[in-house]
Formats: sequence, structure tokens, C-alpha cells
Amino acid sequence: MPRARVAHSFESPTVDVMIDMGHPFLNRTVDGFIKIGIVGAAHAGTQEIFGMLRKESVTKRDIEKGIKKMASEGVQWGVVAGIYTGMEYGMQQTRGRHDWKSAMLGGALTGALLTFGDSSYDKEKMLRSAITGGAIATAAEFLRILT
Amino acid sequence: MPRARVAHSFESPTVDVMIDMGHPFLNRTVDGFIKIGIVGAAHAGTQEIFGMLRKESVTKRDIEKGIKKMASEGVQWGVVAGIYTGMEYGMQQTRGRHDWKSAMLGGALTGALLTFGDSSYDKEKMLRSAITGGAIATAAEFLRILT
Repeated sequence: MPRARVAHSFESPTVDVMIDMGHPFLNRTVDGFIKIGIVGAAHAGTQEIFGMLRKESVTKRDIEKGIKKMASEGVQWGVVAGIYTGMEYGMQQTRGRHDWKSAMLGGALTGALLTFGDSSYDKEKMLRSAITGGAIATAAEFLRILT
Repeated sequence: MPRARVAHSFESPTVDVMIDMGHPFLNRTVDGFIKIGIVGAAHAGTQEIFGMLRKESVTKRDIEKGIKKMASEGVQWGVVAGIYTGMEYGMQQTRGRHDWKSAMLGGALTGALLTFGDSSYDKEKMLRSAITGGAIATAAEFLRILT
């Protein structure tokens, strides 16, 4: 079956990394970084290929630009996912259960932490990002129960 | 325990709606719309209150603006969630299982459908939204396995 093959190629590098790290907190963070980083890179790649298909001619420069974009978008998505997975794991450990409140707090901390990477960060922006991060994580947690 | 009370106030209206609709496809869509709509409205409300706290004086107009924003953001988040939940349910029924491919296809269809509501929609924008919707849904599905 093709299903088994495709799933395998996504899962196998993850398992290797999980063995390496030695602590569940690190394992989850790295796992989130790699898995969602691949999705982010695939997204940038698909968008770039879609843009190339619409053009008459594709230059070497277009392809180089596309690969750079894949790398940077992969890292961005990976960082968000890694921080969020780590935070939510920490919340679960602290609170002793997994629910929408863990998701909300994890999302809020992720939003707050992400603004540190931004050069134009200030206190208000950090708080606003925390509110939005918490709301998105809560919505995702509700969707997870629904689907 | 406070947990039971808070969870109850979120869950109870949902259960009433689920009895009313009579079909799981409709139930999930309405359920997603209401639950995520509440999160979206709460997000807009929190952001507005945060903005008000920073101001010296709050006028009646500020509060009216905040309530309008809560309503429109609630509907927006609810529509996205409702379409996505419905689509993913459809994918699950068609494919017979729930995995990241159902999430990806559901997300892509949601992205494509959402551009119909946009007045400036064209074919390219629709395809780009479908690609992004699919990527976000796939990332969310991977995070769901991780956390």
C-alpha cells in the first residue's frame, strides 16, 4: 500500500532523533521542530513551484530563491512548533493534565517568546502576541476534540 | 473544583446544538462554528480590553467598536473552523480514516472555499490559499500527534 511508504518517510527520522535526546521535553521540542519544519518547507516549495509554473521561463536564480525560501520558512515553522510543543509539554507536566488551558498557556508563552526574535519588539507587542498565540492554540485544541 | 465549572460553560451550548441538527456532518460544522467562534470573539475582546487599559479615557464609542470587532472576529474564526471541521469529516467518511492526509485535503478545500467570500478573488489566489490551508492543517495534525 502506498500509505505505509509515505507515512514511513515522514516518521522514521523522528524516531532516530527521539532516541538521541534522552529527555521527553527535548525530544518533543526537536520532534516538533523537525516535523513542522518539513511541512513549512514543503509549503514554501509548493508555493514557489506554483509561481514557476505560471512563468514563461524559469532561471537558475528563481530556483535558488525558492530553495532559500524553503529553508527559511521551514526554520520559522519549526521554531514556532518546537517552542509550542515544549511549552505545552511543560504545562502538562506542571498541571498534571492535557486540556485547552494547557494549550492556551502554551500558546501564550510561545507568542511571547517569539517576539524576542523580532528586532522591533516592545512590551505591548509581546503581550499582544501572547494573547493571539493563546487564542490560536485554544482554537486548535477545540478543533482537535471536534475532528 | 473550578475546572468543572469552566469546562461546563463551554460545553453545554454545544450539546444542545448537536441534538438539534440531526446529522453528524451538520453537527460538527455547527459545533466548530460555535466553539471556535467563541474563541475568536474572546480573542478580539481581550485585545480590545488590552488596548482600552492603555488609554487614559475610554469612551462609549470605544466599547461599541470593541463589541462590533468581537462579533465580526467571532464569525470569521467560526466560519473557518466550521468549514474545516465539515470538510475534514467529509474526508474521513470518504477515506475511511483520520490522518494527516485527511487534514491536508480538508485544509486545502477550506482555503479554496474561503476565497469565494473575498470580493477580490481570482483563480491564482484560490489555489495559493488552498496550498497554505493544506499546509497549516497538516502542521496542526502533526502537532496533535506530538502533544
